[in-house]
This record gives sequence, structure tokens and C-alpha cells, in this order.
Amino acid sequence: MSLLPSLSQLHDPNPFLRRHLGPDAAEQQAMLEVLGVASRTELIEQTVPPGIRFNRPLDLPPALDEQAALERLRGYAEQNQRWTSLIGMGYHATRTPTVILRNVLENPGWYTAYTPYQPEIAQGRLEALLNYQQMVIDLTGLDLANASLLDEATAAGEAMALARRVTKSRSNRFFADEHCHPQTLSVLQTRAEGFGFELVIDSLANLDQHEVFGALLQYPDTHGAVHDLRPAIQHLHSQQAIACVAADLLSLVLLTPPGEQGADVVLGSSQRFGVPMGYGGPHAAYFACRDEFKRAMPGRIIGVSKDARGNLALRMALQTREQHIRREKANSNICTAQVLLANIAGFYAVYHGPDGLRRIAQRVHRLTTILAAGLERNGVKRLNQHFFDTLTLEVGGSQTSIIQSAEAARINLRILGRGQLGVALDETCDESTVLRLFDLFLGVDHGLDIAGLDGEDLPAGIPDELLRRSDYLTHPVFNLHHSETEMLRYLKQLENKDLALNQSMIPLGSCTMKLNASSEMIPITWPGFAELHPFAPVEQATGYKAMIDELEGWLCAITGFDAICMQPNSGAQGEYAGLLAISKYHRSRQQGQRDICLIPASAHGTNPASAQMAGMQVVIVACDSAGNVDLEDLKLKAKEAGERLSCLMATYPSTHGVYEEGISEICEVIHRHGGQVYMDGANLNAQVGLARPADIGADVSHMNLHKTFCIPHGGGGPGMGPIGVRAHLAPFVASHPVIPLPGPDPQNTAVSAAPWGSASILPISWMYIAMMGPQLADASEVAILSANYLAERLGGAFPVLYRGRNERVAHECILDLRPLKAQTGISEEDVAKRLMDYGFHAPTMSFPVPGTLMVEPTESEPKAELDRFVEAMLSIRAEIAEVQNGHWPAEDNPLKRAPHTLADVLGTWDRPYSLEQAVAPSAHARAHKYWPAVNRVDNVYGDRNLFCACVPVEDYR
Amino acid sequence: MSLLPSLSQLHDPNPFLRRHLGPDAAEQQAMLEVLGVASRTELIEQTVPPGIRFNRPLDLPPALDEQAALERLRGYAEQNQRWTSLIGMGYHATRTPTVILRNVLENPGWYTAYTPYQPEIAQGRLEALLNYQQMVIDLTGLDLANASLLDEATAAGEAMALARRVTKSRSNRFFADEHCHPQTLSVLQTRAEGFGFELVIDSLANLDQHEVFGALLQYPDTHGAVHDLRPAIQHLHSQQAIACVAADLLSLVLLTPPGEQGADVVLGSSQRFGVPMGYGGPHAAYFACRDEFKRAMPGRIIGVSKDARGNLALRMALQTREQHIRREKANSNICTAQVLLANIAGFYAVYHGPDGLRRIAQRVHRLTTILAAGLERNGVKRLNQHFFDTLTLEVGGSQTSIIQSAEAARINLRILGRGQLGVALDETCDESTVLRLFDLFLGVDHGLDIAGLDGEDLPAGIPDELLRRSDYLTHPVFNLHHSETEMLRYLKQLENKDLALNQSMIPLGSCTMKLNASSEMIPITWPGFAELHPFAPVEQATGYKAMIDELEGWLCAITGFDAICMQPNSGAQGEYAGLLAISKYHRSRQQGQRDICLIPASAHGTNPASAQMAGMQVVIVACDSAGNVDLEDLKLKAKEAGERLSCLMATYPSTHGVYEEGISEICEVIHRHGGQVYMDGANLNAQVGLARPADIGADVSHMNLHKTFCIPHGGGGPGMGPIGVRAHLAPFVASHPVIPLPGPDPQNTAVSAAPWGSASILPISWMYIAMMGPQLADASEVAILSANYLAERLGGAFPVLYRGRNERVAHECILDLRPLKAQTGISEEDVAKRLMDYGFHAPTMSFPVPGTLMVEPTESEPKAELDRFVEAMLSIRAEIAEVQNGHWPAEDNPLKRAPHTLADVLGTWDRPYSLEQAVAPSAHARAHKYWPAVNRVDNVYGDRNLFCACVPVEDYR
Repeated sequence: MSLLPSLSQLHDPNPFLRRHLGPDAAEQQAMLEVLGVASRTELIEQTVPPGIRFNRPLDLPPALDEQAALERLRGYAEQNQRWTSLIGMGYHATRTPTVILRNVLENPGWYTAYTPYQPEIAQGRLEALLNYQQMVIDLTGLDLANASLLDEATAAGEAMALARRVTKSRSNRFFADEHCHPQTLSVLQTRAEGFGFELVIDSLANLDQHEVFGALLQYPDTHGAVHDLRPAIQHLHSQQAIACVAADLLSLVLLTPPGEQGADVVLGSSQRFGVPMGYGGPHAAYFACRDEFKRAMPGRIIGVSKDARGNLALRMALQTREQHIRREKANSNICTAQVLLANIAGFYAVYHGPDGLRRIAQRVHRLTTILAAGLERNGVKRLNQHFFDTLTLEVGGSQTSIIQSAEAARINLRILGRGQLGVALDETCDESTVLRLFDLFLGVDHGLDIAGLDGEDLPAGIPDELLRRSDYLTHPVFNLHHSETEMLRYLKQLENKDLALNQSMIPLGSCTMKLNASSEMIPITWPGFAELHPFAPVEQATGYKAMIDELEGWLCAITGFDAICMQPNSGAQGEYAGLLAISKYHRSRQQGQRDICLIPASAHGTNPASAQMAGMQVVIVACDSAGNVDLEDLKLKAKEAGERLSCLMATYPSTHGVYEEGISEICEVIHRHGGQVYMDGANLNAQVGLARPADIGADVSHMNLHKTFCIPHGGGGPGMGPIGVRAHLAPFVASHPVIPLPGPDPQNTAVSAAPWGSASILPISWMYIAMMGPQLADASEVAILSANYLAERLGGAFPVLYRGRNERVAHECILDLRPLKAQTGISEEDVAKRLMDYGFHAPTMSFPVPGTLMVEPTESEPKAELDRFVEAMLSIRAEIAEVQNGHWPAEDNPLKRAPHTLADVLGTWDRPYSLEQAVAPSAHARAHKYWPAVNRVDNVYGDRNLFCACVPVEDYR
Repeated sequence: MSLLPSLSQLHDPNPFLRRHLGPDAAEQQAMLEVLGVASRTELIEQTVPPGIRFNRPLDLPPALDEQAALERLRGYAEQNQRWTSLIGMGYHATRTPTVILRNVLENPGWYTAYTPYQPEIAQGRLEALLNYQQMVIDLTGLDLANASLLDEATAAGEAMALARRVTKSRSNRFFADEHCHPQTLSVLQTRAEGFGFELVIDSLANLDQHEVFGALLQYPDTHGAVHDLRPAIQHLHSQQAIACVAADLLSLVLLTPPGEQGADVVLGSSQRFGVPMGYGGPHAAYFACRDEFKRAMPGRIIGVSKDARGNLALRMALQTREQHIRREKANSNICTAQVLLANIAGFYAVYHGPDGLRRIAQRVHRLTTILAAGLERNGVKRLNQHFFDTLTLEVGGSQTSIIQSAEAARINLRILGRGQLGVALDETCDESTVLRLFDLFLGVDHGLDIAGLDGEDLPAGIPDELLRRSDYLTHPVFNLHHSETEMLRYLKQLENKDLALNQSMIPLGSCTMKLNASSEMIPITWPGFAELHPFAPVEQATGYKAMIDELEGWLCAITGFDAICMQPNSGAQGEYAGLLAISKYHRSRQQGQRDICLIPASAHGTNPASAQMAGMQVVIVACDSAGNVDLEDLKLKAKEAGERLSCLMATYPSTHGVYEEGISEICEVIHRHGGQVYMDGANLNAQVGLARPADIGADVSHMNLHKTFCIPHGGGGPGMGPIGVRAHLAPFVASHPVIPLPGPDPQNTAVSAAPWGSASILPISWMYIAMMGPQLADASEVAILSANYLAERLGGAFPVLYRGRNERVAHECILDLRPLKAQTGISEEDVAKRLMDYGFHAPTMSFPVPGTLMVEPTESEPKAELDRFVEAMLSIRAEIAEVQNGHWPAEDNPLKRAPHTLADVLGTWDRPYSLEQAVAPSAHARAHKYWPAVNRVDNVYGDRNLFCACVPVEDYR
């Protein structure tokens, strides 16, 4: 090329692609040479079955460069109108403390971390989650809390399922107060239908007319009313029913907590603790229960255990429950949490402390009290006598004019039928908000004066017997970090304990820990996306609509489906939503008897759990020795199911990391028997641009936007699992009771609380696809190249368990540690922990096959990092040889003792291997040592001695 | 208080104050008890001389809470209009790679770090700066580069001074091409006047008509012309004159670098390497010279040395030069750098690499070539035949209409006299930009087609003999980190090596390392502040104007001055600017003979250097044994100076950390003799709200916005040093040749390149003052309380050298290590390095008194952190005792061996103290160990073996 080339010579069709991919062209070539193939094309031809190949460019607009994509998306953000939303219904404006915004939500050290399955390198976020649990315990007045669920509505669904599991009642009916939030009632309806429960929605006053196994009450209720819960709870307990309460977390600072009133389960949203509304999510739902129900608690729980030195160490407790053990008997398919958001909410409590929270709640309540008094003495009738922050007002014929005035003032009120309006105040409101509301409701000549009203002894919003008098947040962590300097350093100390993608590869099979690019992440904290109420009139969210419509179109182009439902806010939610659509479809064709769901033995545990929740009966299909679905068994099971066959759930490429040759035939078999095919999208990263689920034969599939489409794992959530469906299923996907969705039957109930699930993180996937364009296929190809490169280089030391055609793996591979364990006693866990000493996060351990490690490098890992990983694994293999040959004792060697910590270094060193071998076994570790914070954590001890609250500070020392 | 208090009871007049201050009320009370005083008021009365007390609340608006302040400032940002600025003149739109934006510019790990005086805990940013130097060396074709200067114009001034110092010519004249940027010529005029040089500004064609000691050429020149520099350089060398070239860094990718053409010094701005224009700054100026001039190089240079283990280690080289050694003979007062911005520019080069940079430059140039050709063939006359990215066009009578069309298209062109217009393209321009320019210049019917033009063999913009053919950025660091994952991890690796405020206290006397709050930092990267060209019409910057006007008013209220000049972009620049105003003032009153500047012996080295640069003669005033100005000597010197007395420069509180009782009298003495008082603002943090410089008697003072007013230190810059003046000096402060400033005589020349200095960081100080309001005084009081608390708790172990009235110190205190050193051989340096093992940054070492440590805790440090520091220092004192009593050998003990690294741990441990004692001597170090990256760095070796470029990667291993 000339020194001064022309523009056309300089043209780069996809500058972002080079940033997203780890290996550059020369490095890819070097990797291909190791594989003995000439080109990426040749490798893909060897790997992907020709019958399913998608042989044309993806029908996506040309890639935008980073700046152009950001500008376009900024245009959408600016189209969204940020009105003052006083709608309430579980979503409230809040102030994210900027020290938390910048150092957690906008910090890859927090948002690129993985789920803390490996506790030794996750003590920072485990501590943050323990704080969160303690906060929930304190505020709800219950014994135990989990590390968050997806949203308040699904948390209510989990409460109902827990109630059924633990109750001694023989009733099949669950009661819900008609004054629960409508989206909660809708999700409860959905769930009850799947479980076969009868949901009774009635006035709380009529509770005693029903025999039920449990009930959900809302506190304060959706209209803002604060009732004494005790009579209802006593009544429920008298019939051995479980009392569940959905509560506003901030109100519990001032109200007698449900736990003190006898509630068994308390749940709700922690959104207003510093997490932006984000047009519906993601937020962390909290969930607390009495100690006796702890083994039935859904979701993840952080517990306190000890490490190999006997020091205190945190971990996820009770991990192997529900979908893992109970599988098709599971009453929950929840598999993730909203860690990043739970952490923000927990840090919000740490930063404000009990006094700060009290001040916030008192201020909101006092403003509401003044508003109530001013309206009342001017003749506006209020429906809820007692309240925390929400008033429901009877305005009769003035409703329209008030709404018009509110629109002129850019204020959203809650619009109710029968001439009623709702107003919910929040921490961003002040005296001027109340004054503007007086203007709206009373006209500008009302003559009211806030200071004057404030000086009066106004009627109490909270009855004296419901005032909270107990302490909360007494643990030191909530009382130490109130200056910004303290808070900043506390956040940094926790961050420094953890290993995230900004430090090293996280080669997790099935979890696709790829680059979460800065340009993808920046938009989510723009106010135009962050500050919208999910139930704001859609006319205010035209930017969101445009972005979501475009993203849906792109996902259709990528998957071949005809429509997308964005509502499911996790992968497992997507499975559930997809199966429900299948069921509804069958029923619509008078095939309601179709209730058998075939699931291969190798499936992820959420599959059978989702099927069970959707009211299906699970039948397992065997796998052959190569790990593929046993086609003969499939045919047999399909035939046996006959008219009862509802569907098959299959993962593609398989959970074993190979492209099954038979997938098209598998789909045909199912269709031939009148069934539908649900494709689990966990491995979509190996299909994009190379094959399309709908073309292969899937009728519905979820897409893990947090895997394939770059939403970061956030340390264990948020996820996002929209589903794609073929046209015939489109009328049967979820709708929403507050904001009806275009497409599905508006009568359809919801699967999640918010219309578009976790809308505020969709810009991440939008940016990724906008910047990659049709070259998304390159990412898939490089992911496959990298996985095969690892398989090739590691296969000699650790056998690769399953391979597909031409001995190729797909985008991940399973390394079989079982033979070595049999010979040496060194287990997959020892290898996983030892990798930490080399500065790596372990691959997926013992899934889908016990005794193995599943490695997924993704397309974003640089070749140098792949090589570093290979060298670490080979070095570990050499260490195993030293055990094998007796050079090191079976129990005293760097593998069994791994990971090593500073505490190991400081003591007397009397081991058969050197200290350097222990903590700095590679050049990289010597140059950039990462120290695990604790020694190997004792899981058994932790499960036997379940303790899930903050430990007194002195115990940390 | 009731459980449901009223709004008035809940009212918090200053919620940010509690976040900014480290100790809360109870902790302050505990600290006061240690001091034996009842209240903060009592302490301040004991400490601050009553005669200078400012006894009323600061006249500032009530504090805004964080959100309200952010909203108000966002309003200002949105008032600024972001037009496409093609003005050039050294400022160009650029794209900050978002991975750098988020992980460096918006990351407290980078922006809260201090100047790397302690290299063992600063290897990360030292490496980043070394990359920057290597980039400058490569691009300029010279031997050596420094770690940045303030801006291109002042760098030109430094080049002139260097030329004078190193030339063998006896001329007193310096030549500047009239086609240098006007702001550069203006600053050169200012500097030449101070030094007493004759500045000749003439056409380059006339160079041979002048005998000069040096010359400045611009390459390409301000009109975009690219000339062969060789004839001029040869002519200069023939008369032993120094050839200095101000060059556009991006153009050097394509143009034969000045170094290859024989230039002695090459300088310029690195702004367009990813640093936002920010309405003028801050940006890093680069400065490179030939090896033979290295000992005369101004500013900081990062050099390669070795540590105590013989491993490679980086450090600041040649530290104790100029203002430290030469003081009043110094030809430069530069004392800081623009580290954060230099790092961004260096990372920009790392991220793009040589190929990426070449592509950017080639694209900009090709667009310009197409623009030139299209205009030329349509009859628009161009003044510069050759060009890189800038065209100067002769449009005659159409000038007005073109400008109007440009305004309609929101495009800023450079408007020149005589019917000329300038256009400079940049990396954000594309085909559409060129098309819009064709529309403007030719009317929309021009019929030109970019692709068509691009396909043609267009006239070359760069003559063949000036095309660059040499390689650059060949070092591996510029060729490894091009994927975002690689870049992210590289940035993180460097960050992890360094200790910043987000990890621990940085108790630097005189440097005021206080909280840089997130809410203060967030606005600076808002596009409304970041993307303005400094020479955009002021009508487009009304938001900036409103913010700056308000900030000036607030600073006047705080200091008592009548006017503020925002132009000086460092503290030393402020000194210089203030002294120039004094000189002009004297001259205006026909007192031009007043040229003697009195400076106390304890003054910071920049004081005499600034005085020397301002053309003054320095006379030193003695200090008494208590560290105060010797009043008798002052009177004597003032009297001796007589009619030649120009001014006194004094720091208050003194550099010894005490409030001198005699300050008012000192000022009176000076005034009585017709002199002016310059107050060095380094210690303003101890005055705010308690005393005001103007009230005390100062006529002019600079304010270090990066100390007292929360602009972070950025790892060694940016600083910002505006000056306040009393009314009689206001007409004499700097103006600007391009954007005349309101207030001063418009004939006044500039001291910095940009009209308002580093305008884009002013929002930080604006936010701080807006959120603190009159309670700024609380910050000063707590800073004094904290310093006295440390003095009290440490004074027993380490004598406090100077105390003021009632044995109190001001906001900092000097710990005297000399007695201990005499007894034990343990020096202040040993203590400083040993603190690193405890996880602390050392206090200021040996300033202002050799053999001492100066500690300034600031108001933002929590009491727990102060106590941790006290415990570390007392523990170190106990360690010294072990040396003293012979328990540990004089050279083999934890102090002499400090700091300890992982390398120490990995070797055989054969020392007389334990490994735990070495690396984890405190509970905090055990829990949150920070590891210095290298052992103690050998300064002498580094200075003797000066090597200031990147080391081959293999040497790092």
C-alpha cells in the first residue's frame, strides 16, 4: 500500500470487530496451523454439520463504529422523556450515590465478575451480598434472606411455591389480596396455572371465607393503604397456611416489620435502594423467610463457613438444591440472582446507615403526610386512611383535567378507574413536588404553605401500633462507611479480593464470559435510559421502543424466528415462558392433553424444573456414549408419549460442547409426533451467523443476552432471557396487565414484573449487534477456533471427553479429570483451586459431567491468554505427575493445598514444595500476582452449620 | 426526636459535608479530647491568630446537595453548544477510546494517585509515562522526551529558555516564525519579556536576516503549510542557534519528523491523541530534545533504574534540578506535569499501535487532500500548497456568506483577516464532513462526489521528500494491546501496581490529598464540557461562562480578592502570572525600577524560579529558629531594596505548617516600602473560611484548585493555579490573543495557551464549593483538628519540628527524623519506604527541611485511618528502637530493607526479622495487603545511567 492510500484502501468495514476479538488475523492463523487446517472456513466446515449451515451473511445493517453506534443510541436515549413519575406500584425514583454508581455499577471490577461459585476468589462480592442479606433480615424482621431474586412479582411466585412445599395444609388454593400490585397478581396467575394451584384473588376482608395453603398480602398495599397484618396472619396460621407479605423495603424503616407480625415469608423489590428504575429493571428482589423454611428457600444464599486454616470464609450455601437435585420435582427453576443490583442496594444501606435510611424514610413520609393533610382539608377524598408514601385519591369528574395539568407539569400520576388517582412520593421528592401536586389537585390558588403545614400536628399517616420500634442495621458494616472516603476504600477493598474479567480469562463452559465492551456499557447509566418508570405512558418511551424494536428485529434475523418476547429476565425464565407458550398453543388447538416434555439426560437442571413449573411431565431421553441424544430412545419416548407429547427441550450445540449431527432429525421426530421443539439458547454463541435455531427446527428458544450478547455477568446477575418464537407461537407469549404488549393476546398473563423485563440493559446487546453487524459470524468462528485450539493443546494432558465430527469440538470442551483422579486422587476441584494460584478462574466444574472441567474460551480471549492458560494447565499436569510418582504426598502438595494465601506465606513453611511453587508458579503470577483472600473453603461445614447473616466484626479478625 | 419528625426537624443544611469530612461529630469530639480542648471553636481560637480571623460566614450561596448541584451544572453543560469545530490552531476533536475513558479518566485508581515521587508504589503510572515518552521520541525523531509539560505555548516558552541555556550563541534574540499559533507567540512574548530576551516575530523567509540564539518554527504551520525544515535548521545551526519546532503530533506519523531534519527541540500538544478538547485543557504538551541537552530538559522525566534486588525499576529521573538546585538562577519554574492526560495520550498510542495511528493520520490526510482538490478545481484559492490536515483558503468577498452558511450547519471554521478562512480536519471527520464543506464553500450544486475524487490521482498534499519513511512505535507495548480485552487488562495490571487515595491515606504535606468526590468528577466527561474548542465563539460557551463567572465570584468571596484570572494552569504558573501583574502595575506607575523580590528562606523552590522568570532579582529573607520569617531581617532587606522593592512572596500558613503571628505586620512592612505582597496559595486549605489572603494583606495570590478545591492530582497533574488580585492589579493580569478576556487590558499577553487555562476541570471545584457552601470553613477546621491530632499522638515518638501559638500546628506538621537518624542511622527515607509495607504512601520527604517528614492529613481522612497511620508510625518507631538497641543490625532490618516485595518472599528467608514482620506488620496489612511492585529504587544509579525510553520486553522478565 502506498504511504498515502485512498479512502477506499483505508476503509475498515468493522473497526469494532478487531477490538472485540482476542486473536488478530496472524494469531488466528497460528492457531489454525496448530489445528492443521488452512483457514477458518475449513475449520468451520469440519465442525458445523453442513445440513444446518446458514450459508449467507446475516441480514443485519452494516456495522457501526463505536462512536457512531453511541451517537445513534444517544439519540434514542434522548427521545425518552424523563418525567417525574409518581406512579409507585413498586417502582420509585431513587438516588444512586455517585460513589457507588462510579465504583460499582460503572466499574468492570464489579460488573465483569462471574457468579461466586469459586468462593476463594469471590470474597468481596460474597461479603457485599451478605451485607445485603443482613439488611433484608433486619428490615423484614425475619430470620433468613437470600441473595436476591429476579423481581417482586416472580419472588411472589416463588413464595407461593415455597408455601405449597412447606405447608401442612392440604388445600390447593392460594389467596392473593386484590390490592397486591397488578403485575404481581398477573405473574401469580401464570405460576398458579402452571403448578395447578387455584389462585383466589379477593379482598383481604374476605380472607376468612377461603381455605388456602397460603396467602400473599401487600404492605403497604398497591393503593398505599397500611393495614395491621396480624389478624390475617393469625387466621392463616390457624389453618396451617403460610403467610407471605410483599413489602416496600423503605417503608419497613418506619413500619412494624411483617416478620414481627408473624409473617412467614417477606419479599419485595430493593429497587428504591439506589437502583435506577431503568424502565423496569434489572433490580434485585429480596426474599426472606423463617428459619424453619431455610431448606426450601429458593435462589442463592450466601453463608458463612470456614476455610482450610479455620478462618472465616463466605460462600454460596445450599447450592445443590432444587433444579440440581430435585430436577423435575423442583418447585423453582431459579438459577441466578441479581447480584450487581443487590450489591448496589446493600451498599446503599452501608453508605446511608440506619440513621440515614431513617431520615430518608421519615422525609418521604412527612412529605406524604403534608400532601395528605393539604388535600384532605381542601375536600379531596382519600381512599387509604393510613399510608407510608402513597395516596389514592377520589377525584371524580376532575380526573381528566388533573391528568392534563399533570401532563403539562411533566408529572406521571397513577391513573385508576372510577375517578381515582394515585400518588407515590420518593426520596427525590421535596417541598416543591408537594406544592406542584397541590397546584394540580387544587388549582394554583390553594393558598397552602408547606412550612406552615409542616409546623402543625397533622393526622398521623401510620397508626401508632404500626410504628417500628425495633433496631435495624446495627452491624458495624452499616455504621462505619458513611464518609465518601471510607465508602470508596471499602468498595475497593472488596473489589481487590475478587478476580474478574479485567484481570484474567474466566473460561466457564456454558457461561460465555466474553468481552463486555466499554462502549456497550456506557449507555446504561445515561439518564435517558436509567430514569424511566416502567409504567410511564409508552409515548414517553419512544426511544426505548425504537431500540427494542430494532433489537427484536436483529434477534429475529440472527435466530430465524418470527417474533421476540423480551419479558423473561433470566435464561430459566425464558425456558418457562417458552414452555408456557407451547402449552397455550396446544390448548388453542384442542390438544390440551399434550403435557409430556422430553428432556435429554445431559440437560441443565433448569430444563426439567421449568417443565415441571409449566405443568408438564418430564420424560428423560438417554444419551449415547458420545454424549449425543440417543435417537432411538428419543423415537421410542416420543412414540410412547403419543398424543401426550408436548415438546422436547434440547440444547444446541449440546451441553457436551459438540454439534450433534442428528439435530435436524431430532426436531423432525418431535414434529412428526405433534410436538414442539424448545431449544435452550445457552450455547447460541456457537450458532450466531453459522446456523439458526428456527432453521434447524426449533419452534421457540431463549437467548441469553448475558452470554452471547455481551450483558456482563455482574458477579452473578443480571441475566436476560428473551425468547424467539415461530409465528404460530407468537400469540401465546406473555403480555402484561399494565402495559399491554404488541403481538400476543392481551389476555395473556405476565411472566415477569416489567413489560420488557430488564429493559435498561438491552442497550448493551443493541450496541454489540450494532457494532458487529453481519460480522457476528466472525465471533462465532473465532470462538470455535479458540475452543478447538485449547482442545488440541490440552487434549494430550487431559482427555477431551466428547468430540463431534472430524474430532472437533464446538465452542467449548470438556476435560476429563476422572482418570487422573482414579490414579492420583487429584480431583477436578483440586485443579480448579490450583488454577487460582496461577491467577485464573476455574472452568465450569462437574457440569454437565461430574469429575470434569468444561472450558469455554470465547472469541474475546487473546491468544496470549489462551497460551497462558494452556501453560498453567500443563504445569498443573506436571504437578499431578509429581503426586503420581510419589514425589509429593497425596495430601500435602500444591494441588490439595490450593489455593494458597498470604496466611500460608506468613506461617512457618514446612511443606514438601517451595513457597515459590505455591504462590508464584508461573512468570505471570510472579509479575502480576493475584492473591485469593481465603484458603479452600469448607462447603460441608458451611451447609451443616448454616449461618447466613453478617458476622460480628471481631470474628473477622 | 419523634419517630415521625417534621421536615424542619429533618432538615440537613449540608448533606455533602458529612460525606466530605472524614471524622463524624463523635469522632471529632474524641479527637478534641485527645487535644484537651472542649470544642473545635476552642481549638481554632488557640491556633489561628485572632488578628487575621475572618469572623463571619463566607458569603457563598447555601450548599446544594449532590443531586441538586449536578442538575445545576448539567444545565450549564447543556447550554454549551457542541458544534463541529474545524478551527485547528492546535486543538482538534478526537475520540477517546471508551476503554481508556472508563478505566483511566473515570477511574479513581488513576485520577486520585499522587505524583510518583515514591517509585516503588508507582510503577504502573511510571510505565504508562515511559510509554508516553517513547511515543514522543518515536514520533519526533529525537533522543529524549519528558513526561509532559502544561501546554504547547508554555512548552515553547520552555524551549526558548532551554535554547538560551544551552546555546553557544551570544545573541539575546529569539526568532519565532510569524506562522506559529498566535497563542504560542503571545506566551513567547510574555516569557521573553520576563527573561529580557528580544523576541523577533517575522516571516520564516526572513530568518537569515536575524542573528539569534534560537528559533521556533511550526510544523505544519498555523495555516497548515508544510515546509521542509532543513534549510532553516541548517542556517540556525550555522550560527550555533538552537532549532525548536512546534509540531502536530499526528502529522508526524506521515511527515519526516523534525528530529530527522536536525531539530534540537520538538514540542507540541498531545491533545488529539484521545484527550478531549475540554475548552482548552488540560492536555499534555510533549517536549523532546537531543541527548546532549538532557540535563537542561525542563519538567519531569521518567527514567529506568534498578531496585535493591537489581531488578529493573522505573522512577522520576533528574528530580532535583532547576527550581530545587538552581532556584533563583532557574530558567524554568515548571514543577508539575499533566500526567493523567499524558497517560491517556500514551494509552491511545498503545491501543491503536503504529498501524492504527497510521490509518488515522492517512485518513485525515486523504480527506484533506480530497477537500483541497475539490475546492481547487472549483476555483477556491489555497494559500498553503502542502498540507497535512489544514487548509487556508482565500475566499475574498464570500467570506461572510460562507461563515453564515457554516453557522447554519453548526460548523466552526477559522476566521482569518483579508478574506481568508482556515479548515482543519480531524479523526472524527468523514466523507460527510468534506461534503458539507464543499456545500459551504461552493454551494450545494457543486456536483462533487467524494468517492469519485478518491478514485483519482490527486495532487499530493505532502511532498515526496517530506514523507515519513522511518518506523515508529516498534516497541512491543505498542503492538500487544489492541483488543479491548488486552487493553483492559493492561490498564488494570498497571493500576494494581499503584497506591492511590482509593486504597489509603496519602498524607502529603503541602499537597492536600483530600477527597475527590465522585459527584465532583462525573461532570468533566460530560460532552457539554469535554467537547468544546477553546477558540469556539464565546456565544457557544455560555454554560462555561456562567460556570466560570460563578466560580470566580465564589473564589473572590473566599479569598477577599476583587478579581480572578483563570488562565494559569498550574500553581507555579500562578506565581509567575501574579508576579508579572505586579511588575506591570509598578511600570504603570512609572516605578519600573522595582525589581527586587523578597523570598523567605523556607520558600518552595518555584518561588525564586518564578521571580527569576518574571525578570526580578531575588533577595532571600532569613527565618528564625521557630521557622518564621525573621521580621528584623525582612525590615532590613525591604529597606535595603528601597525603591527597587517590587514584592514579597510568602506562603501562609508557612511552609513549616504554622500560622505565623507576624503575617499582618510582614505585609505592612512591604506595603510601607511600596512593595506588593504575593501570597503563595499552597496552604490555602488552612485559611478557607478562617482567614482571607486579601484581608491579611496580600495583593495577589494563586489558588491551587488541585489542592484546596478538590481537583485530583491525577498521578502528577493536571494542576490549576488561577490567581486572585486586588482591584489595582486587575488590569494587569493575562489576557489572550484569540479570545480577549473581560477585565485586563486586552493588550496584555497570555501566560497559557488557552484563555481560561484548563477549563474542563473547573467543574470539579465548582461542584465542591457549590456542595459545601459556607460550611467550607468546617473543612478547614477539621483539617486543622486532624493535623493537631496527629501532632499530639505522634509528637512523643517523633518530635514535631515547628509549632505556632499555644503549641498548635496548622493543617500539617513536620516530624523531625534527624535526631533518630543521628542515633540509629535510620533515615526519613527508611521510614517513608517502610510505611509502604504497612500500606501507606509516605508523607512529604525532606521538604521544606531535609531529614524530616511533613504530614498533612486533610479533613477527608476518617479518624480510623488517622489512627491506623499513627499505629503504623508508632510501630515503626518501635522497630527503630530494635535497631537502636542492637537487636537488629544497622543494615539488615525491616527499615533499611523496606519496602518488601513478593520477590523477597519467594527467595530464601535468612533475615534477622520474620517474613511476617517484613510484609504484614499490621492487622490491616494482613487483611488488605498492598504489594509494592519493586524493592527500593536506586536513584543514584538511575541518574548516572540516564535511560528514559521503553526497555525491551525481555528486560522486564
